[in-house]
Amino acid sequence: MEKLGKLIYSGKAKSVYEYKDEDKVVVSFRDDITAGDGEKKDSLSKKGYYNTLISTKLFEILEENGIATQLVKLIDSSSMVSKKLEMIPLEVIARNLATGSLIRRFPFEEKTPFNPPIIQFDFKNDEFHDPMLNDDIAIALKIATKEDLAEIREITLKINEVLSKFLDENGILLVDFKLEFGKDNNGNIILGDEISPDTCRFWDNKTHETLDKDLFRKGEGDVMSAYHEIFNRIISNEDIKRWSIDSN
Amino acid sequence: MEKLGKLIYSGKAKSVYEYKDEDKVVVSFRDDITAGDGEKKDSLSKKGYYNTLISTKLFEILEENGIATQLVKLIDSSSMVSKKLEMIPLEVIARNLATGSLIRRFPFEEKTPFNPPIIQFDFKNDEFHDPMLNDDIAIALKIATKEDLAEIREITLKINEVLSKFLDENGILLVDFKLEFGKDNNGNIILGDEISPDTCRFWDNKTHETLDKDLFRKGEGDVMSAYHEIFNRIISNEDIKRWSIDSN
Repeated sequence: MEKLGKLIYSGKAKSVYEYKDEDKVVVSFRDDITAGDGEKKDSLSKKGYYNTLISTKLFEILEENGIATQLVKLIDSSSMVSKKLEMIPLEVIARNLATGSLIRRFPFEEKTPFNPPIIQFDFKNDEFHDPMLNDDIAIALKIATKEDLAEIREITLKINEVLSKFLDENGILLVDFKLEFGKDNNGNIILGDEISPDTCRFWDNKTHETLDKDLFRKGEGDVMSAYHEIFNRIISNEDIKRWSIDSN
Repeated sequence: MEKLGKLIYSGKAKSVYEYKDEDKVVVSFRDDITAGDGEKKDSLSKKGYYNTLISTKLFEILEENGIATQLVKLIDSSSMVSKKLEMIPLEVIARNLATGSLIRRFPFEEKTPFNPPIIQFDFKNDEFHDPMLNDDIAIALKIATKEDLAEIREITLKINEVLSKFLDENGILLVDFKLEFGKDNNGNIILGDEISPDTCRFWDNKTHETLDKDLFRKGEGDVMSAYHEIFNRIISNEDIKRWSIDSN
Protein backbone atom coordinates (compact mmCIF):
# COMPACT_ATOMS: atom_id res chain seq x y z
CA MET A 1 0.00 0.00 0.00
CA GLU A 2 1.22 3.47 -0.85
CA LYS A 3 1.86 5.75 2.09
CA LEU A 4 -1.01 8.23 2.58
CA GLY A 5 -0.22 11.95 2.45
CA LYS A 6 -1.40 14.60 4.91
CA LEU A 7 -5.03 14.41 6.02
CA ILE A 8 -7.00 17.20 4.33
CA TYR A 9 -10.51 16.47 5.53
CA SER A 10 -12.33 13.87 7.58
CA GLY A 11 -16.05 13.34 7.00
CA LYS A 12 -18.54 11.00 8.65
CA ALA A 13 -17.37 7.90 6.72
CA LYS A 14 -14.46 8.96 4.51
CA SER A 15 -11.14 10.74 4.92
CA VAL A 16 -9.34 12.68 2.22
CA TYR A 17 -5.53 12.78 2.03
CA GLU A 18 -3.02 14.62 -0.10
CA TYR A 19 -1.53 12.70 -3.01
CA LYS A 20 1.83 13.04 -4.73
CA ASP A 21 0.16 14.73 -7.71
CA GLU A 22 -1.17 18.10 -6.59
CA ASP A 23 -4.34 17.88 -8.67
CA LYS A 24 -5.33 14.60 -7.02
CA VAL A 25 -6.24 13.33 -3.57
CA VAL A 26 -6.73 9.96 -1.95
CA VAL A 27 -10.23 9.22 -0.72
CA SER A 28 -10.13 6.61 2.02
CA PHE A 29 -13.34 4.80 2.98
CA ARG A 30 -13.57 4.04 6.70
CA ASP A 31 -15.77 1.44 8.43
CA ASP A 32 -17.74 4.17 10.24
CA ILE A 33 -21.46 4.41 9.65
CA THR A 34 -23.79 7.18 10.85
CA ALA A 35 -27.46 8.04 10.51
CA GLY A 36 -30.01 10.56 11.78
CA ASP A 37 -27.93 13.70 11.20
CA GLY A 38 -24.94 11.93 12.81
CA GLU A 39 -26.79 10.93 16.00
CA LYS A 40 -26.60 7.18 15.41
CA LYS A 41 -23.02 5.91 14.96
CA ASP A 42 -21.21 2.60 14.65
CA SER A 43 -18.24 0.96 13.00
CA LEU A 44 -18.96 -2.08 10.86
CA SER A 45 -16.09 -4.28 9.75
CA LYS A 46 -15.61 -4.39 5.95
CA LYS A 47 -17.95 -1.48 5.26
CA GLY A 48 -15.07 0.62 3.92
CA TYR A 49 -14.05 -2.28 1.69
CA TYR A 50 -17.54 -2.79 0.24
CA ASN A 51 -18.19 0.90 -0.33
CA THR A 52 -14.81 1.49 -1.96
CA LEU A 53 -15.30 -1.30 -4.46
CA ILE A 54 -19.01 -0.74 -5.10
CA SER A 55 -18.32 2.97 -5.72
CA THR A 56 -15.38 2.15 -7.95
CA LYS A 57 -17.45 -0.27 -10.01
CA LEU A 58 -20.33 2.19 -10.38
CA PHE A 59 -17.99 5.09 -11.24
CA GLU A 60 -16.41 2.86 -13.91
CA ILE A 61 -19.83 2.13 -15.39
CA LEU A 62 -20.56 5.85 -15.46
CA GLU A 63 -17.20 6.69 -17.08
CA GLU A 64 -17.90 4.06 -19.76
CA ASN A 65 -21.11 5.97 -20.44
CA GLY A 66 -19.42 9.33 -20.80
CA ILE A 67 -20.01 10.71 -17.31
CA ALA A 68 -17.00 12.34 -15.66
CA THR A 69 -16.28 11.07 -12.13
CA GLN A 70 -13.53 11.78 -9.65
CA LEU A 71 -12.16 8.22 -9.97
CA VAL A 72 -8.56 7.94 -11.10
CA LYS A 73 -7.62 4.49 -9.78
CA LEU A 74 -7.80 2.23 -6.77
CA ILE A 75 -4.74 2.17 -4.52
CA ASP A 76 -6.02 -0.61 -2.34
CA SER A 77 -9.36 -1.97 -1.24
CA SER A 78 -10.24 1.09 0.84
CA SER A 79 -8.51 3.94 -0.98
CA MET A 80 -9.22 5.61 -4.28
CA VAL A 81 -6.97 8.12 -6.02
CA SER A 82 -9.38 10.85 -7.08
CA LYS A 83 -9.32 14.11 -8.95
CA LYS A 84 -9.05 17.00 -6.53
CA LEU A 85 -12.37 18.85 -6.71
CA GLU A 86 -13.78 21.96 -5.16
CA MET A 87 -16.92 20.37 -3.80
CA ILE A 88 -20.32 22.03 -4.31
CA PRO A 89 -22.16 21.86 -0.96
CA LEU A 90 -25.27 20.22 -2.36
CA GLU A 91 -26.72 16.78 -1.78
CA VAL A 92 -28.36 16.00 -5.09
CA ILE A 93 -31.08 13.45 -4.52
CA ALA A 94 -32.88 11.57 -7.30
CA ARG A 95 -35.97 9.53 -6.52
CA ASN A 96 -37.50 6.84 -8.73
CA LEU A 97 -39.95 5.65 -6.08
CA ALA A 98 -41.51 7.48 -3.13
CA THR A 99 -40.14 6.43 0.24
CA GLY A 100 -38.18 7.78 3.23
CA SER A 101 -38.25 11.46 4.08
CA LEU A 102 -40.29 12.28 0.97
CA ILE A 103 -43.33 10.38 2.23
CA ARG A 104 -42.91 11.79 5.72
CA ARG A 105 -42.93 15.33 4.35
CA PHE A 106 -45.43 15.06 1.49
CA PRO A 107 -48.61 13.07 0.84
CA PHE A 108 -47.18 10.50 -1.56
CA GLU A 109 -48.17 6.89 -1.22
CA GLU A 110 -45.12 4.68 -0.55
CA LYS A 111 -43.59 3.31 -3.78
CA THR A 112 -45.30 5.86 -6.05
CA PRO A 113 -43.12 5.71 -9.17
CA PHE A 114 -41.63 8.91 -10.56
CA ASN A 115 -40.76 9.05 -14.23
CA PRO A 116 -38.87 11.32 -14.71
CA PRO A 117 -37.40 10.98 -11.24
CA ILE A 118 -37.88 13.71 -8.67
CA ILE A 119 -34.64 15.63 -8.24
CA GLN A 120 -34.11 17.44 -4.97
CA PHE A 121 -31.24 19.65 -3.82
CA ASP A 122 -30.38 19.68 -0.13
CA PHE A 123 -27.90 22.20 1.22
CA LYS A 124 -25.02 20.19 2.71
CA ASN A 125 -24.54 22.04 5.97
CA ASP A 126 -24.39 20.36 9.38
CA GLU A 127 -25.23 23.52 11.31
CA PHE A 128 -28.48 23.98 9.36
CA HIS A 129 -29.19 20.21 9.17
CA ASP A 130 -29.01 19.87 5.39
CA PRO A 131 -32.26 21.69 4.50
CA MET A 132 -33.87 21.21 1.13
CA LEU A 133 -33.55 24.31 -1.03
CA ASN A 134 -34.60 25.49 -4.44
CA ASP A 135 -32.61 26.98 -7.31
CA ASP A 136 -33.24 30.59 -6.27
CA ILE A 137 -31.94 29.94 -2.75
CA ALA A 138 -28.91 27.96 -3.99
CA ILE A 139 -28.03 30.79 -6.36
CA ALA A 140 -28.51 33.46 -3.65
CA LEU A 141 -26.28 31.44 -1.29
CA LYS A 142 -23.69 31.46 -4.13
CA ILE A 143 -23.53 27.65 -3.96
CA ALA A 144 -23.94 27.33 -7.70
CA THR A 145 -25.03 29.29 -10.74
CA LYS A 146 -28.25 28.72 -12.65
CA GLU A 147 -26.18 27.04 -15.38
CA ASP A 148 -24.39 24.79 -12.85
CA LEU A 149 -27.74 23.67 -11.44
CA ALA A 150 -29.12 22.89 -14.88
CA GLU A 151 -25.99 20.90 -15.73
CA ILE A 152 -26.07 19.02 -12.42
CA ARG A 153 -29.72 18.16 -13.05
CA GLU A 154 -28.92 16.89 -16.54
CA ILE A 155 -25.95 14.78 -15.38
CA THR A 156 -28.04 13.35 -12.54
CA LEU A 157 -30.77 12.24 -14.96
CA LYS A 158 -28.13 10.55 -17.13
CA ILE A 159 -26.58 8.85 -14.09
CA ASN A 160 -29.99 7.62 -13.03
CA GLU A 161 -30.59 6.15 -16.47
CA VAL A 162 -27.24 4.39 -16.67
CA LEU A 163 -27.20 3.06 -13.11
CA SER A 164 -30.86 2.01 -13.04
CA LYS A 165 -30.26 -0.13 -16.11
CA PHE A 166 -26.99 -1.67 -14.91
CA LEU A 167 -28.32 -2.39 -11.43
CA ASP A 168 -31.61 -3.81 -12.69
CA GLU A 169 -29.66 -6.24 -14.88
CA ASN A 170 -28.03 -7.37 -11.65
CA GLY A 171 -31.25 -7.82 -9.68
CA ILE A 172 -31.16 -4.45 -7.93
CA LEU A 173 -33.81 -1.73 -8.02
CA LEU A 174 -32.35 1.78 -7.70
CA VAL A 175 -35.05 3.40 -5.55
CA ASP A 176 -33.27 6.68 -4.85
CA PHE A 177 -29.76 8.01 -4.37
CA LYS A 178 -27.68 10.98 -3.31
CA LEU A 179 -24.86 12.47 -5.35
CA GLU A 180 -22.29 15.15 -4.66
CA PHE A 181 -20.52 17.11 -7.35
CA GLY A 182 -17.42 19.27 -7.47
CA LYS A 183 -15.50 21.36 -9.95
CA ASP A 184 -12.03 20.56 -11.23
CA ASN A 185 -9.35 23.18 -11.96
CA ASN A 186 -10.94 23.90 -15.32
CA GLY A 187 -14.38 24.51 -13.83
CA ASN A 188 -15.81 21.24 -15.15
CA ILE A 189 -18.55 19.69 -13.03
CA ILE A 190 -17.41 16.22 -11.95
CA LEU A 191 -19.21 13.57 -9.91
CA GLY A 192 -17.47 13.19 -6.55
CA ASP A 193 -18.13 11.49 -3.22
CA GLU A 194 -19.36 7.89 -3.53
CA ILE A 195 -22.22 5.77 -4.84
CA SER A 196 -22.78 2.95 -2.40
CA PRO A 197 -25.35 1.37 -0.08
CA ASP A 198 -24.59 4.33 2.22
CA THR A 199 -25.89 6.82 -0.33
CA CYS A 200 -28.51 4.85 -2.30
CA ARG A 201 -31.64 2.92 -1.58
CA PHE A 202 -31.05 -0.45 -3.21
CA TRP A 203 -33.91 -2.96 -3.14
CA ASP A 204 -33.99 -6.47 -4.53
CA ASN A 205 -35.86 -5.88 -7.78
CA LYS A 206 -38.18 -8.84 -7.24
CA THR A 207 -38.82 -8.98 -3.48
CA HIS A 208 -38.18 -5.29 -2.67
CA GLU A 209 -35.96 -6.45 0.20
CA THR A 210 -33.81 -3.58 1.55
CA LEU A 211 -30.10 -3.91 0.71
CA ASP A 212 -28.70 -0.61 2.00
CA LYS A 213 -28.11 1.70 4.95
CA ASP A 214 -31.85 1.81 5.77
CA LEU A 215 -31.17 -1.43 7.70
CA PHE A 216 -28.85 0.55 9.96
CA ARG A 217 -31.16 3.57 10.18
CA LYS A 218 -34.03 1.36 11.26
CA GLY A 219 -31.91 -1.07 13.31
CA GLU A 220 -33.24 -3.95 11.22
CA GLY A 221 -31.32 -6.99 9.99
CA ASP A 222 -27.67 -7.61 9.24
CA VAL A 223 -26.38 -4.45 7.59
CA MET A 224 -23.12 -5.91 6.26
CA SER A 225 -24.85 -8.93 4.74
CA ALA A 226 -26.84 -6.52 2.61
CA TYR A 227 -23.69 -4.61 1.54
CA HIS A 228 -22.06 -7.98 0.80
CA GLU A 229 -25.06 -8.93 -1.33
CA ILE A 230 -24.80 -5.74 -3.41
CA PHE A 231 -21.05 -6.36 -3.75
CA ASN A 232 -21.68 -9.93 -4.95
CA ARG A 233 -24.31 -8.93 -7.45
CA ILE A 234 -22.29 -6.27 -9.24
CA ILE A 235 -18.62 -7.13 -8.78
CA SER A 236 -17.04 -10.08 -10.60
CA ASN A 237 -13.83 -11.99 -10.01
CA GLU A 238 -12.53 -10.31 -13.14
CA ASP A 239 -13.06 -6.92 -11.49
CA ILE A 240 -11.07 -8.03 -8.43
CA LYS A 241 -8.23 -9.33 -10.64
CA ARG A 242 -8.26 -6.21 -12.81
CA TRP A 243 -8.02 -4.01 -9.72
CA SER A 244 -5.10 -6.11 -8.37
CA ILE A 245 -6.53 -6.14 -4.87
CA ASP A 246 -7.08 -8.89 -2.36
CA SER A 247 -10.41 -10.66 -2.65
CA ASN A 248 -10.61 -10.05 1.16
CA MET B 1 -75.37 45.24 2.45
CA GLU B 2 -76.27 42.39 0.13
CA LYS B 3 -77.29 39.16 1.81
CA LEU B 4 -74.48 36.60 1.81
CA GLY B 5 -75.09 33.24 0.11
CA LYS B 6 -74.27 29.81 1.49
CA LEU B 7 -70.89 29.42 3.21
CA ILE B 8 -68.55 27.44 0.92
CA TYR B 9 -65.33 27.53 2.89
CA SER B 10 -63.98 29.05 6.08
CA GLY B 11 -60.23 29.62 6.39
CA LYS B 12 -58.13 31.05 9.22
CA ALA B 13 -59.04 34.68 8.48
CA LYS B 14 -61.52 34.69 5.57
CA SER B 15 -64.80 33.01 4.70
CA VAL B 16 -66.04 32.34 1.18
CA TYR B 17 -69.75 32.46 0.31
CA GLU B 18 -71.80 31.69 -2.76
CA TYR B 19 -72.84 34.65 -4.89
CA LYS B 20 -75.85 35.13 -7.16
CA ASP B 21 -73.61 34.67 -10.24
CA GLU B 22 -72.39 31.08 -10.30
CA ASP B 23 -68.93 32.00 -11.55
CA LYS B 24 -68.35 34.34 -8.61
CA VAL B 25 -68.09 34.11 -4.84
CA VAL B 26 -68.00 36.58 -1.97
CA VAL B 27 -64.78 36.63 0.04
CA SER B 28 -65.44 37.96 3.51
CA PHE B 29 -62.50 39.14 5.63
CA ARG B 30 -62.93 38.38 9.34
CA ASP B 31 -61.15 40.01 12.29
CA ASP B 32 -59.43 36.72 13.19
CA ILE B 33 -55.66 36.59 13.19
CA THR B 34 -53.48 33.50 13.60
CA ALA B 35 -49.77 32.70 13.59
CA GLY B 36 -47.39 29.81 14.18
CA ASP B 37 -49.22 27.21 12.08
CA GLY B 38 -52.51 28.33 13.72
CA GLU B 39 -51.27 27.92 17.30
CA LYS B 40 -51.51 31.60 18.21
CA LYS B 41 -54.98 33.08 17.69
CA ASP B 42 -56.81 36.30 18.39
CA SER B 43 -59.51 38.55 17.02
CA LEU B 44 -58.56 42.18 16.40
CA SER B 45 -61.26 44.74 15.77
CA LYS B 46 -61.10 46.35 12.30
CA LYS B 47 -58.56 43.87 10.94
CA GLY B 48 -61.11 42.58 8.41
CA TYR B 49 -61.82 46.14 7.34
CA TYR B 50 -58.17 47.06 6.84
CA ASN B 51 -57.30 43.86 4.99
CA THR B 52 -60.33 44.08 2.70
CA LEU B 53 -59.52 47.59 1.62
CA ILE B 54 -55.73 47.19 1.46
CA SER B 55 -56.19 44.05 -0.67
CA THR B 56 -58.72 45.78 -2.88
CA LYS B 57 -56.42 48.74 -3.43
CA LEU B 58 -53.43 46.52 -4.24
CA PHE B 59 -55.49 44.27 -6.53
CA GLU B 60 -56.67 47.41 -8.35
CA ILE B 61 -53.08 48.56 -8.83
CA LEU B 62 -52.22 45.12 -10.23
CA GLU B 63 -55.22 45.10 -12.58
CA GLU B 64 -54.16 48.54 -13.86
CA ASN B 65 -50.81 46.93 -14.67
CA GLY B 66 -52.31 44.04 -16.60
CA ILE B 67 -52.26 41.39 -13.88
CA ALA B 68 -55.46 39.37 -13.53
CA THR B 69 -56.81 39.19 -9.98
CA GLN B 70 -59.93 37.66 -8.48
CA LEU B 71 -61.33 41.10 -7.61
CA VAL B 72 -64.71 41.93 -9.14
CA LYS B 73 -65.97 44.62 -6.75
CA LEU B 74 -66.38 45.53 -3.13
CA ILE B 75 -69.78 44.81 -1.59
CA ASP B 76 -69.00 46.47 1.69
CA SER B 77 -65.93 47.16 3.78
CA SER B 78 -65.31 43.51 4.62
CA SER B 79 -66.62 41.65 1.56
CA MET B 80 -65.30 41.39 -1.94
CA VAL B 81 -67.12 39.83 -4.89
CA SER B 82 -64.47 37.66 -6.50
CA LYS B 83 -64.10 35.39 -9.48
CA LYS B 84 -64.68 31.79 -8.46
CA LEU B 85 -61.33 30.05 -8.78
CA GLU B 86 -60.08 26.53 -8.35
CA MET B 87 -57.27 27.34 -5.97
CA ILE B 88 -53.78 25.90 -6.51
CA PRO B 89 -52.54 24.69 -3.09
CA LEU B 90 -49.29 26.64 -3.18
CA GLU B 91 -48.07 29.51 -1.07
CA VAL B 92 -45.93 31.47 -3.49
CA ILE B 93 -43.44 33.49 -1.51
CA ALA B 94 -41.26 36.24 -2.98
CA ARG B 95 -38.42 37.72 -0.94
CA ASN B 96 -36.64 40.99 -1.64
CA LEU B 97 -34.71 40.97 1.65
CA ALA B 98 -33.62 38.07 3.86
CA THR B 99 -35.58 37.77 7.08
CA GLY B 100 -37.97 35.43 8.92
CA SER B 101 -37.91 31.69 8.26
CA LEU B 102 -35.34 32.10 5.48
CA ILE B 103 -32.63 33.25 7.88
CA ARG B 104 -33.60 30.59 10.42
CA ARG B 105 -33.21 27.86 7.79
CA PHE B 106 -30.27 29.15 5.74
CA PRO B 107 -27.10 31.13 6.49
CA PHE B 108 -28.19 34.48 5.07
CA GLU B 109 -27.41 37.63 6.96
CA GLU B 110 -30.59 39.50 7.91
CA LYS B 111 -31.59 42.09 5.26
CA THR B 112 -29.43 40.57 2.51
CA PRO B 113 -31.05 42.01 -0.63
CA PHE B 114 -32.17 39.66 -3.40
CA ASN B 115 -32.41 41.00 -6.92
CA PRO B 116 -34.10 39.14 -8.58
CA PRO B 117 -36.16 38.16 -5.53
CA ILE B 118 -36.02 34.62 -4.20
CA ILE B 119 -39.22 32.82 -5.12
CA GLN B 120 -40.23 29.89 -2.95
CA PHE B 121 -43.17 27.52 -3.27
CA ASP B 122 -44.65 26.06 -0.09
CA PHE B 123 -47.24 23.30 -0.29
CA LYS B 124 -50.40 24.67 1.36
CA ASN B 125 -51.35 21.71 3.50
CA ASP B 126 -52.15 21.92 7.21
CA GLU B 127 -51.54 18.23 7.86
CA PHE B 128 -47.99 18.47 6.49
CA HIS B 129 -47.40 21.98 7.92
CA ASP B 130 -46.93 23.77 4.59
CA PRO B 131 -43.52 22.34 3.64
CA MET B 132 -41.36 24.05 1.03
CA LEU B 133 -41.22 22.05 -2.18
CA ASN B 134 -39.55 22.28 -5.54
CA ASP B 135 -40.97 22.09 -9.06
CA ASP B 136 -40.41 18.33 -9.43
CA ILE B 137 -42.31 17.60 -6.21
CA ALA B 138 -45.14 20.02 -7.08
CA ILE B 139 -45.51 18.37 -10.49
CA ALA B 140 -45.41 14.85 -9.00
CA LEU B 141 -48.07 15.86 -6.45
CA LYS B 142 -50.14 17.05 -9.46
CA ILE B 143 -50.47 20.47 -7.83
CA ALA B 144 -49.45 22.20 -11.04
CA THR B 145 -47.79 21.57 -14.37
CA LYS B 146 -44.32 22.73 -15.32
CA GLU B 147 -45.95 25.41 -17.48
CA ASP B 148 -48.21 26.56 -14.62
CA LEU B 149 -45.20 26.93 -12.33
CA ALA B 150 -43.27 28.94 -14.92
CA GLU B 151 -46.29 31.21 -15.43
CA ILE B 152 -46.82 31.64 -11.67
CA ARG B 153 -43.16 32.56 -11.29
CA GLU B 154 -43.39 35.11 -14.10
CA ILE B 155 -46.59 36.70 -12.73
CA THR B 156 -45.07 36.83 -9.24
CA LEU B 157 -42.02 38.70 -10.53
CA LYS B 158 -44.30 41.19 -12.27
CA ILE B 159 -46.41 41.62 -9.12
CA ASN B 160 -43.26 42.23 -7.11
CA GLU B 161 -42.14 44.89 -9.54
CA VAL B 162 -45.48 46.70 -9.60
CA LEU B 163 -46.17 46.54 -5.87
CA SER B 164 -42.61 47.35 -4.78
CA LYS B 165 -42.75 50.54 -6.81
CA PHE B 166 -46.24 51.58 -5.69
CA LEU B 167 -45.54 50.86 -2.03
CA ASP B 168 -42.15 52.54 -2.06
CA GLU B 169 -43.78 55.70 -3.42
CA ASN B 170 -45.96 55.54 -0.33
CA GLY B 171 -43.14 55.06 2.17
CA ILE B 172 -43.42 51.28 2.42
CA LEU B 173 -40.70 48.72 1.74
CA LEU B 174 -42.07 45.42 0.40
CA VAL B 175 -39.72 43.00 2.17
CA ASP B 176 -41.46 39.76 1.21
CA PHE B 177 -44.96 38.49 0.53
CA LYS B 178 -47.08 35.42 -0.03
CA LEU B 179 -49.46 34.93 -2.94
CA GLU B 180 -52.01 32.29 -3.79
CA PHE B 181 -53.24 31.61 -7.30
CA GLY B 182 -56.18 29.78 -8.75
CA LYS B 183 -57.59 28.90 -12.14
CA ASP B 184 -60.81 30.26 -13.58
CA ASN B 185 -63.23 28.23 -15.72
CA ASN B 186 -61.08 28.82 -18.78
CA GLY B 187 -57.92 27.57 -17.08
CA ASN B 188 -56.40 31.03 -16.76
CA ILE B 189 -54.12 31.53 -13.77
CA ILE B 190 -55.54 34.34 -11.63
CA LEU B 191 -54.22 35.91 -8.45
CA GLY B 192 -56.51 35.00 -5.56
CA ASP B 193 -56.50 35.25 -1.76
CA GLU B 194 -55.36 38.63 -0.44
CA ILE B 195 -52.39 40.99 -0.30
CA SER B 196 -52.36 42.63 3.09
CA PRO B 197 -50.28 43.08 6.24
CA ASP B 198 -51.31 39.47 7.05
CA THR B 199 -49.50 38.14 3.98
CA CYS B 200 -46.65 40.62 3.42
CA ARG B 201 -43.76 42.01 5.37
CA PHE B 202 -44.19 45.77 5.10
CA TRP B 203 -41.48 47.94 6.64
CA ASP B 204 -41.29 51.70 6.77
CA ASN B 205 -38.88 52.37 3.92
CA LYS B 206 -36.79 54.80 5.96
CA THR B 207 -36.80 53.44 9.53
CA HIS B 208 -37.44 49.74 8.72
CA GLU B 209 -40.16 49.77 11.39
CA THR B 210 -42.39 46.69 11.12
CA LEU B 211 -45.92 47.45 9.85
CA ASP B 212 -47.39 43.97 9.49
CA LYS B 213 -48.40 40.69 11.15
CA ASP B 214 -44.87 40.14 12.48
CA LEU B 215 -45.97 42.39 15.38
CA PHE B 216 -48.59 39.78 16.26
CA ARG B 217 -46.22 36.81 15.65
CA LYS B 218 -43.65 38.33 18.00
CA GLY B 219 -46.19 39.82 20.45
CA GLU B 220 -44.63 43.25 19.91
CA GLY B 221 -46.42 46.58 19.67
CA ASP B 222 -49.89 47.58 18.59
CA VAL B 223 -50.78 45.38 15.64
CA MET B 224 -53.80 47.35 14.45
CA SER B 225 -51.95 50.66 14.56
CA ALA B 226 -49.54 49.20 12.02
CA TYR B 227 -52.39 48.00 9.78
CA HIS B 228 -53.99 51.43 10.13
CA GLU B 229 -50.71 53.04 9.10
CA ILE B 230 -50.50 50.93 5.93
CA PHE B 231 -54.15 51.76 5.23
CA ASN B 232 -53.46 55.48 5.64
CA ARG B 233 -50.41 55.44 3.44
CA ILE B 234 -52.01 53.77 0.43
CA ILE B 235 -55.74 54.53 0.56
CA SER B 236 -57.07 57.98 -0.20
CA ASN B 237 -60.40 59.63 0.53
CA GLU B 238 -61.09 59.34 -3.19
CA ASP B 239 -60.72 55.57 -2.92
CA ILE B 240 -63.24 55.46 -0.07
CA LYS B 241 -65.70 57.61 -2.05
CA ARG B 242 -65.21 55.62 -5.21
CA TRP B 243 -65.88 52.38 -3.32
CA SER B 244 -69.07 53.88 -1.79
CA ILE B 245 -68.28 52.49 1.63
CA ASP B 246 -68.28 54.02 5.07
CA SER B 247 -65.03 55.68 6.05
CA ASN B 248 -65.40 53.64 9.30
